Amino acid sequence: RCLRLGVTMAKSKFEYVRDFEADDTCLPHCWVVVRLDGRNFHRFAEKHNFAKPNDSRALQLMTKCAQTVMEELEDIVIAYGQSDEYSFVFRRKSNWFKRRASKFMTLVASQFASSYVFYWRDYFEDQPLLYPPGFDGRVVLYPSNQTLKDYLSWRQADCHINNLYNTVFWALIQQSGLTPVQAQERLKGTLAGDKNEILFSQFHINYNDEPQMYRKGTVLVWQKVDEVRTQEVRLPAEMEGEKMTVTRTRTRPVPLYCDLIGDAFWKEHPDILTGEN
Amino acid sequence: RCLRLGVTMAKSKFEYVRDFEADDTCLPHCWVVVRLDGRNFHRFAEKHNFAKPNDSRALQLMTKCAQTVMEELEDIVIAYGQSDEYSFVFRRKSNWFKRRASKFMTLVASQFASSYVFYWRDYFEDQPLLYPPGFDGRVVLYPSNQTLKDYLSWRQADCHINNLYNTVFWALIQQSGLTPVQAQERLKGTLAGDKNEILFSQFHINYNDEPQMYRKGTVLVWQKVDEVRTQEVRLPAEMEGEKMTVTRTRTRPVPLYCDLIGDAFWKEHPDILTGEN
Amino acid sequence: RCLRLGVTMAKSKFEYVRDFEADDTCLPHCWVVVRLDGRNFHRFAEKHNFAKPNDSRALQLMTKCAQTVMEELEDIVIAYGQSDEYSFVFRRKSNWFKRRASKFMTLVASQFASSYVFYWRDYFEDQPLLYPPGFDGRVVLYPSNQTLKDYLSWRQADCHINNLYNTVFWALIQQSGLTPVQAQERLKGTLAGDKNEILFSQFHINYNDEPQMYRKGTVLVWQKVDEVRTQEVRLPAEMEGEKMTVTRTRTRPVPLYCDLIGDAFWKEHPDILTGEN
Amino acid sequence: RCLRLGVTMAKSKFEYVRDFEADDTCLPHCWVVVRLDGRNFHRFAEKHNFAKPNDSRALQLMTKCAQTVMEELEDIVIAYGQSDEYSFVFRRKSNWFKRRASKFMTLVASQFASSYVFYWRDYFEDQPLLYPPGFDGRVVLYPSNQTLKDYLSWRQADCHINNLYNTVFWALIQQSGLTPVQAQERLKGTLAGDKNEILFSQFHINYNDEPQMYRKGTVLVWQKVDEVRTQEVRLPAEMEGEKMTVTRTRTRPVPLYCDLIGDAFWKEHPDILTGEN
Repeated sequence: RCLRLGVTMAKSKFEYVRDFEADDTCLPHCWVVVRLDGRNFHRFAEKHNFAKPNDSRALQLMTKCAQTVMEELEDIVIAYGQSDEYSFVFRRKSNWFKRRASKFMTLVASQFASSYVFYWRDYFEDQPLLYPPGFDGRVVLYPSNQTLKDYLSWRQADCHINNLYNTVFWALIQQSGLTPVQAQERLKGTLAGDKNEILFSQFHINYNDEPQMYRKGTVLVWQKVDEVRTQEVRLPAEMEGEKMTVTRTRTRPVPLYCDLIGDAFWKEHPDILTGEN
Repeated sequence: RCLRLGVTMAKSKFEYVRDFEADDTCLPHCWVVVRLDGRNFHRFAEKHNFAKPNDSRALQLMTKCAQTVMEELEDIVIAYGQSDEYSFVFRRKSNWFKRRASKFMTLVASQFASSYVFYWRDYFEDQPLLYPPGFDGRVVLYPSNQTLKDYLSWRQADCHINNLYNTVFWALIQQSGLTPVQAQERLKGTLAGDKNEILFSQFHINYNDEPQMYRKGTVLVWQKVDEVRTQEVRLPAEMEGEKMTVTRTRTRPVPLYCDLIGDAFWKEHPDILTGEN
Repeated sequence: RCLRLGVTMAKSKFEYVRDFEADDTCLPHCWVVVRLDGRNFHRFAEKHNFAKPNDSRALQLMTKCAQTVMEELEDIVIAYGQSDEYSFVFRRKSNWFKRRASKFMTLVASQFASSYVFYWRDYFEDQPLLYPPGFDGRVVLYPSNQTLKDYLSWRQADCHINNLYNTVFWALIQQSGLTPVQAQERLKGTLAGDKNEILFSQFHINYNDEPQMYRKGTVLVWQKVDEVRTQEVRLPAEMEGEKMTVTRTRTRPVPLYCDLIGDAFWKEHPDILTGEN
Repeated sequence: RCLRLGVTMAKSKFEYVRDFEADDTCLPHCWVVVRLDGRNFHRFAEKHNFAKPNDSRALQLMTKCAQTVMEELEDIVIAYGQSDEYSFVFRRKSNWFKRRASKFMTLVASQFASSYVFYWRDYFEDQPLLYPPGFDGRVVLYPSNQTLKDYLSWRQADCHINNLYNTVFWALIQQSGLTPVQAQERLKGTLAGDKNEILFSQFHINYNDEPQMYRKGTVLVWQKVDEVRTQEVRLPAEMEGEKMTVTRTRTRPVPLYCDLIGDAFWKEHPDILTGEN
């Protein structure tokens, strides 16, 4: 909202309708999580020829968008994505936009969506984008570190369960020629062990050798990164105008493909929960 | 959310965190308004060389995005836009996504934002898009027809007040060579009549001759439109494969640049408030 | 909150916890309904020997409490009670306590509950109150006159359905000697007509002759009432100290036992909905 | 809500109005605090001749009501009262009434208010109750032990600040004959040390010797209490009907007049925060 000038304008008699806007401040000291989900991404994936069961281009584009969200918005300390969803965690004591839930979720959703179209061609070179996609979002509050960790564990467990299923499902279709209905029938009632067994015995796939990004999803955390740039630098007269390589250290959202459920991750990254990064 | 298959998946012990999601159902029988505002659009306008005081390309792109939102989402009966904002009104008895406020506002925000990038080049041919923009959104409920009409009147009165100011402000700068500070100083304390007078006497501008789109903003309503398409039609054998021109009547969101504050608009479009279109 | 003096007090470092209080302002221009229900009133009725199926003392005490609530609180335009419940309707544009829902419901609940004990002996002369009862309350918003009328109709239809059932149920027990289980069994699947028929043929009761207060519940509306008081009046010297009878007209919450579902009531009392009484 | 029988009743066409009730579930795992305040207690205290600055009967009656609330409702682990206010803390994982905020606050408010009238005469023997009082209430959530402790510290600090002020204020009036306006003027701008000094030098009062109940307020915690009752016990034939003294241990809400701000209290009562009592 900035095409207006910073002057006090006349007010109309209709001004009273502003009072109908409800206050949706998030409870202080709680972790604020915004989760986005692609809208109708089953159809979107079909139309854009996504590889099955995982399309690495699509996953990397999602991560690029999430990185943009983290860089453009304030106070996001960690993000986690898998499939067509991404979760963003704002620090407990964030006072960004006075903690208004609607600001958090719409700014995440709109920045993510505009980035998705903006960066599409960097990931889908040969596949034009046919229409602009939508994403729905929600805000959920977690009052303690434990509940926040359990939230992220929930999403990662969901990733595992879905990816194991999808890996077998599509192997049965792509390699054994089953129809989707037959594949679904074959998997009905099977446990994780059964699915691993089918993969190994029937397709010689060791599930644990599948790419981490597919099995674990993507964790985005802030890390110091050395950035090397070539830029024109102002120097003493005799060297003026010279191009030089400049290295500077910046903090960037970096993707990790690691376990979030155990304690190890949180011990390695204590700053995330203390909010002191 | 559709990259998953429709099968019941195992549930993890972390499932309990779902209960932390709050119910944000909108009060039934109320008009649900979602208003979007461009984030940091002052900077965005500068970086992309928007014409001052109005850039018709930018306004038309906003309207294209709003039309896309109306076509892709459900139950929007009218929309109104001006400057870098757009309001969408869902019908009173809409039960879309069970009236969850977060769904309404994030789907509007994300669809609008992705469309903004997607259609950018159709409106800004010579001006590349430098970065993906953000939009914030909110949901406001209006319990009666009168309060809804007053809401739209409020936004249109705001459009008028701002546009009159901006028109003089930029004339003083562009035509009289004042600095922004001088122009602001010149306008301090002036009333609408004073501003009209400055425009007329100093710049020979009759404010009422300025384009309606600038003075009134853009109203989007559903109207029947004849669409002419050339398409291949299946026909009896002897004419097979022939291309033909087909006209069909569809209902589309059509832009109007008219007054919303008086009764005339509502008398001409009674369906909007009865929700029977 | 008034045992404190109106002076600015020192603030402690713990003051920040105030910000955890959420804003619960009711949407403007909506009817605000507070409904109270007796807590564990089945047990309460047993312990205090309430007559079955209706105890007129108990109903009249409820109404006395509701009248007290209407007189002590602001902006209640109508109340409706039946059984162990009472609903209070605040006028659409009430700004009492800035429309905070928690204020509305706790002040109604506490005033009603303290009145219940305070006035108990006026209605239950021979039956001591054994313990202080509780009432739960809630706030519900209705955006239009129609939905408000339908709310009150819902409660009155509920009164009718329950009272018809209870009248037959207790006749079967008290007059035919059935056990509660047998009575319940006898009524299973019966429609309103069946119940009327049992009452008439078996107990010579014409349900429509039952007291209106039992069949319709109690409506409380503000009406002008002439109040006659004997009071000492200051007069010219020669008559000083004389007691005189004084009549003055006041507006009081008056009980009616009438139909709320049809149009007649609302035509007779147009002020309730316009909010101009 | 229990005067109805547990049978499925016919539903009216008005049933739809139930959907207008909003969900007000409290965020899980948070401490739920209900705070009550007397309504217009300045006037109430005047009318009922409360002693100034503290009326021990009134404070003890408040505590009796709070104890009743703790015994009649579920899941309250600690309560704190001072002046005309009382706060009740429900355990973090309480699922009483599915954590609906309106249930929590109205049941506390109504039970407290009915108890206030019910027990009045046990504390105010010579002072009849003139009218039934009201109490307003609110729900506030605290996500961590620290914020809960800070909430209680805030109320106790408030008690201290007010009581110190009131003690000097009323001494100036009652013992030095100042008017309220003069007393207020005298105290303007004084700090805690100044007030202690006035009390000591002018009235020979050592503030720290004032009763703890006035200075600290009242903390209610659950403690094991030996209850001695004389009751008729069923015994073997030869002793039948004999009255005997029976001691049994029950857990009761017991008043303490102690500091809540330091760590000592929480170390002595670890069960309150762990929720395992």
